[in-house]
Amino acid sequence: MITLHQMHASGNCYKVRLAAHQLGIPLRLQEYPVLDGLTRKPEFLGKNPNGRVPLLEFEDGRTLAESGAILFHLTEGTKLQPDDAWSRAQMLQWMFFEQYSHEPYIAVARYWFVFPPREELERRRHLIAEWQAKGNAALAVMETHLARHDWFGGSTYSIADIALYGYTHCADEGGFDLSHYRHIVHWLARVRSEADHITMSHS
Amino acid sequence: MITLHQMHASGNCYKVRLAAHQLGIPLRLQEYPVLDGLTRKPEFLGKNPNGRVPLLEFEDGRTLAESGAILFHLTEGTKLQPDDAWSRAQMLQWMFFEQYSHEPYIAVARYWFVFPPREELERRRHLIAEWQAKGNAALAVMETHLARHDWFGGSTYSIADIALYGYTHCADEGGFDLSHYRHIVHWLARVRSEADHITMSHS
Repeated sequence: MITLHQMHASGNCYKVRLAAHQLGIPLRLQEYPVLDGLTRKPEFLGKNPNGRVPLLEFEDGRTLAESGAILFHLTEGTKLQPDDAWSRAQMLQWMFFEQYSHEPYIAVARYWFVFPPREELERRRHLIAEWQAKGNAALAVMETHLARHDWFGGSTYSIADIALYGYTHCADEGGFDLSHYRHIVHWLARVRSEADHITMSHS
Repeated sequence: MITLHQMHASGNCYKVRLAAHQLGIPLRLQEYPVLDGLTRKPEFLGKNPNGRVPLLEFEDGRTLAESGAILFHLTEGTKLQPDDAWSRAQMLQWMFFEQYSHEPYIAVARYWFVFPPREELERRRHLIAEWQAKGNAALAVMETHLARHDWFGGSTYSIADIALYGYTHCADEGGFDLSHYRHIVHWLARVRSEADHITMSHS
């Protein structure tokens, strides 16, 4: 069985669980508590020198890091990727957008709001304005797209939607008010209505 | 002909020019001066609501953003991507790594060191330690990989190497000392020795 090294509350890990669940791919979950720092210890660094989860590990020892690459690999040739090259290019466009322009503000804000002791957030209070500005800019880009499209990777539900859903659906935990984005609210409902949806707290 | 909306000094744009050159794909270059802010004006935002270059525009009006997605799309089915799914997954792993863990420190440091007036860098002097720490951490991850592999996307030169070359080969401009990374120095030379290499200043 494939092992997913993960933190259960991480949106990047949730994306992998959701895609695997929707394809019926069983995963053995190896949990790393969020604040324990175990992914920066030598045992884990031997598996991923970048010290991050999610990390996929196959029975033969091969490992794959980066949620975007894991999503792509697990779903190649399945219903979770469009058939045509142009839609696949758009799918990847949005997956790179998510990691560069969305996650570093929306996921990072949520992290500091939710997990470490409150004084750690206080020490970063000067960063909140930047998280808000850049996170809302990313949400506005999504809203513009969704005004004219149902999905992100071409005309069907794909891993681009899963990648963006991961941290958008819990953006309120980082202080973002999604009620300003009515197309996003409708798209979140469409993603939730996909067959075999699991919530982030599913295990 | 395909148009590349670009900034010539941008490593993300250089990656696209390099891959297109190596495949003999002609590109019409539409230049946006680095400090003019034209990519945040309505005319450009109509093409890419995220306000960033590189942006590829086809003659029929279709557009594609994100250097990683552009590289993937332009090179699908060519010698610049490995044939097998596992190598392609590793290729994408390193491309996502570059955009998340490498570019935000190494490219961003170079930007502030090289382009805006000096007082803008002075105003960000408190960020230099973070750029250095996280940029060097990314270089160390690359060095660990290159101690045992010649290339990043499986056993052959691919767009993963192009993606990482883009800002690694000019990392010194952001204050990084590559002489600490002998495997990286050798890999940079291997990339440069690939047929039909162009330098960043080539146009």
